[in-house]
Amino acid sequence: MALLPLLSVAGDITGSALPMAVVDDQRYNRAIHIMVMLLIGFGFLMVFVRKYGRSALTATFMLVSTSLPLYLLINRINPGHGTDEIDRLIYAEFCAASLLITAGAVLGRLKMQQYILLGLLFVPFYMFNEWMVLQGGLGLIPSGAVADTGGSIVIHAFGAIFGLGVALTMTTKQDFEKTIESDSTSDRYSMLGSMALWIFWPSFCAALVPPDKMPHTVVNVILALCASTLTTYLTSVSIRKRISIADIANAALAGGVAIGSTCDSASHTMAVVIGMMAGGLSTIGFSIIQAKQQRFMKIIDTCGVTNLHGLPGLMGGLAAMPVVRGLHMENQLMGILITIVVAFLTGLVSGKILPFLGRKVESYEDVDEFVDAEN
Amino acid sequence: MALLPLLSVAGDITGSALPMAVVDDQRYNRAIHIMVMLLIGFGFLMVFVRKYGRSALTATFMLVSTSLPLYLLINRINPGHGTDEIDRLIYAEFCAASLLITAGAVLGRLKMQQYILLGLLFVPFYMFNEWMVLQGGLGLIPSGAVADTGGSIVIHAFGAIFGLGVALTMTTKQDFEKTIESDSTSDRYSMLGSMALWIFWPSFCAALVPPDKMPHTVVNVILALCASTLTTYLTSVSIRKRISIADIANAALAGGVAIGSTCDSASHTMAVVIGMMAGGLSTIGFSIIQAKQQRFMKIIDTCGVTNLHGLPGLMGGLAAMPVVRGLHMENQLMGILITIVVAFLTGLVSGKILPFLGRKVESYEDVDEFVDAEN
Amino acid sequence: MALLPLLSVAGDITGSALPMAVVDDQRYNRAIHIMVMLLIGFGFLMVFVRKYGRSALTATFMLVSTSLPLYLLINRINPGHGTDEIDRLIYAEFCAASLLITAGAVLGRLKMQQYILLGLLFVPFYMFNEWMVLQGGLGLIPSGAVADTGGSIVIHAFGAIFGLGVALTMTTKQDFEKTIESDSTSDRYSMLGSMALWIFWPSFCAALVPPDKMPHTVVNVILALCASTLTTYLTSVSIRKRISIADIANAALAGGVAIGSTCDSASHTMAVVIGMMAGGLSTIGFSIIQAKQQRFMKIIDTCGVTNLHGLPGLMGGLAAMPVVRGLHMENQLMGILITIVVAFLTGLVSGKILPFLGRKVESYEDVDEFVDAEN
Repeated sequence: MALLPLLSVAGDITGSALPMAVVDDQRYNRAIHIMVMLLIGFGFLMVFVRKYGRSALTATFMLVSTSLPLYLLINRINPGHGTDEIDRLIYAEFCAASLLITAGAVLGRLKMQQYILLGLLFVPFYMFNEWMVLQGGLGLIPSGAVADTGGSIVIHAFGAIFGLGVALTMTTKQDFEKTIESDSTSDRYSMLGSMALWIFWPSFCAALVPPDKMPHTVVNVILALCASTLTTYLTSVSIRKRISIADIANAALAGGVAIGSTCDSASHTMAVVIGMMAGGLSTIGFSIIQAKQQRFMKIIDTCGVTNLHGLPGLMGGLAAMPVVRGLHMENQLMGILITIVVAFLTGLVSGKILPFLGRKVESYEDVDEFVDAEN
Repeated sequence: MALLPLLSVAGDITGSALPMAVVDDQRYNRAIHIMVMLLIGFGFLMVFVRKYGRSALTATFMLVSTSLPLYLLINRINPGHGTDEIDRLIYAEFCAASLLITAGAVLGRLKMQQYILLGLLFVPFYMFNEWMVLQGGLGLIPSGAVADTGGSIVIHAFGAIFGLGVALTMTTKQDFEKTIESDSTSDRYSMLGSMALWIFWPSFCAALVPPDKMPHTVVNVILALCASTLTTYLTSVSIRKRISIADIANAALAGGVAIGSTCDSASHTMAVVIGMMAGGLSTIGFSIIQAKQQRFMKIIDTCGVTNLHGLPGLMGGLAAMPVVRGLHMENQLMGILITIVVAFLTGLVSGKILPFLGRKVESYEDVDEFVDAEN
Repeated sequence: MALLPLLSVAGDITGSALPMAVVDDQRYNRAIHIMVMLLIGFGFLMVFVRKYGRSALTATFMLVSTSLPLYLLINRINPGHGTDEIDRLIYAEFCAASLLITAGAVLGRLKMQQYILLGLLFVPFYMFNEWMVLQGGLGLIPSGAVADTGGSIVIHAFGAIFGLGVALTMTTKQDFEKTIESDSTSDRYSMLGSMALWIFWPSFCAALVPPDKMPHTVVNVILALCASTLTTYLTSVSIRKRISIADIANAALAGGVAIGSTCDSASHTMAVVIGMMAGGLSTIGFSIIQAKQQRFMKIIDTCGVTNLHGLPGLMGGLAAMPVVRGLHMENQLMGILITIVVAFLTGLVSGKILPFLGRKVESYEDVDEFVDAEN
């Protein structure tokens, strides 16, 4: 089966020869791996902001604790992914990952309660897009006709573009004058987050892949990550003359983002190629495009999610067209287009609602909201 | 089966349809997850003491390395939990978790060799209580009649109360004048420990649950944790006006502590309720009760284990009475009572023995015992 | 079967009663555990060098991203370990672990591109030794006649001795005048790496062990680690009067190194004995031997890989002779001898090639190569 989109998998698996208790356990281990990515991975990656570490980690806790139960609740009312508890948990985690990407775009400019509100707004919008792109919602695309096993489009690109929509209202003029500082300790924490994401990425992409396709899938993801990591280093020193640790911590992961749509169908060689392209594209994003984008859009994208999740996510979605056999180009393009439009518009709407809770006084600093944060 | 206490599980599983090599592997993955909790989880959570990080981490290593082999050795002589090697390892890890909780109560006031001695004393006392409460020891409670699958009572409450017993002799007058300092780096390390505990908590609770009950159990644990995390934030800002990162790092976990007794039998809704109550109770503990308790008992509870493990553990044990069908109230109450009495008395005895190895000169500082700890 | 060397395992397993999809999944979880060891484990253990954290972590990324694909590529051309994708990935990870050990010997004295070149040189040499010692290459030892399930010889000793070969040319006179500084933050990061290695070590050793031998194997590894951890503390304070955190972070792991060759065949008691001996030997190495060795060999071994991987690795390989039933002593000795000779000579050759890319200006400092590394 060449075409293996996110949603058709559960059904395929249930039909396999393995007992459900075995399949559930396999997926449970993936679900825990993804949980490491959500909390330690995304959480510590965002600790690169020197004076905002307590906030970034607390926000991560809040975003995850808001989105998982809310997704499970809505999904219980409208069980789009079947009723297997572990499958539902994994889909909820995918949503939480996308939300954390969104939060990265406005990190440091939201109060703690605004992160929670962001989560409440994000989850239904995310599920609406997931329903349209993967489950045949509104009849725009047949169910299962978009290749996006590891979520390049519906998780990564959606989260990044939603984040840009939010950033449009959640960036003030003063924010442009404030530099986002890091230091050697925050950089090392950030690399911890990056490595946690890198390590468990194969489980993210293979979480719902049938057991017999798992080995090929996980090796593909690892190859794409190795390729993007090496390419990031080479591109970073080529452009900047020196290495930027922010490039390494972020762009090294772009291979994982981009291989998402094709992780189970690409050849190993193709996985390496996609990884290299993603690493290069992402590093160019961080080193060259980001400054221009921020001036052009009048936003600040704190973590550069455009470069890590947006561009590589879209690239990965497009790469599926030549790579995945049996894929109808118009469906894949439509899936990407819907995601872009829905993400941006719903992000924009959310960004209009968040300021009702006010604005953070000192951007990028714990001291605003935390007891004893002077040290 | 509504009633599924810690000890009856192994037998249930062996009778299942899955080959032992499959069940053993499933449990092995849980055992490794618990090991992350013991070392990185408990270890780094205790690094919040700014100048005592090297000691806290070394002590964690010593406590784990003392208790695991000792438990396995005693258990070999008296094989209460059957002979499966992985099952025995998991029970030994539960004991190590309880010991680490105890150590949290007196953290920073013990010399390194006293942590090792504490481990040697703790393990047999812990096993004595485990035997009485869960295995029908002394005939006080029928074997398997106490609901405590994830150890709210015999692991969390036992460890916390034992720790209070020890603290009674291991707190000096000078300790009351010394503030326990943290800074942004130690706080971020502490959040790493907290997140590691949060992430792998479902594996702790589901380690010995039969495969078919695993999905419901792990979702319950995750829901309880999400609920306590959100409630902790809300309670912390309500009481203190600002967020305390110590509340977040600790009380967020209270849902995991409290859901222990009922993780496999509560409904999802009930899991959320238990998580909320635990998060609120624990945060009130840290922000209001702890200061009064310390003055009243004339002890210092360094990590506030009373608030994170003691109160939520007891609450979780009590919550089983309305929640678990078929549970005899008198057995559950007797299990809790025995645990309180045994833990406090044996903790007190241990606290009388520890001072034979002297007293730490500078509390809460590495410099006492470590080479080059000035930096 | 008493004799269970690295390479015969895959075949044994395939013949077992479990479906391949189940076995592959079990091994996949081990593979991810090993990935944690490679990146967070080895990576953060090396962060103990205060001003070189960004470099150490970036180098870890580069070494892993170079060696995994290269190993898989060469192995595809000459499939010595069968064709199972997950098995091949695990063998590639073993190679990456050995390379990271080598890098530890010269850490801080290589430019970033030299780490990549080191990886390119190391992989074929490592595979050559693996082929000779384990697969009957050149007909010196029958295939499968060396006991080295967890790689004491071909992974740990090889990596350490190769590293010494490289260090011979990659140590300058100025390096002797430069102290390698650490501080409380770098020490705590280092303990994080150490704990990550400790936690997942059982998965490293049991990665390719047949399912029915897994429980005994992992308990052996944990017992050996507990024994070496306690012995390290006792030896460290005996020799130095105070605790050295570097001893704890490193020598505590020596039990894992030394149990490698016999992890699946030693009794639990023997595992404890091997762990104690390894912990003691390694601590003596760090506290006494290292200074003499560095003067004698005119090298600096930054991370002390001789003491953590070299001596305990050789000890573990030798310990197999009395422990493993049916083992022919001359084969085991020949395997160790070949490894020593091949590792040292090929390390020496590599060390002669690396300087073609120049020399790092400021040893042990990020500032040479990283943007904004002044903070």
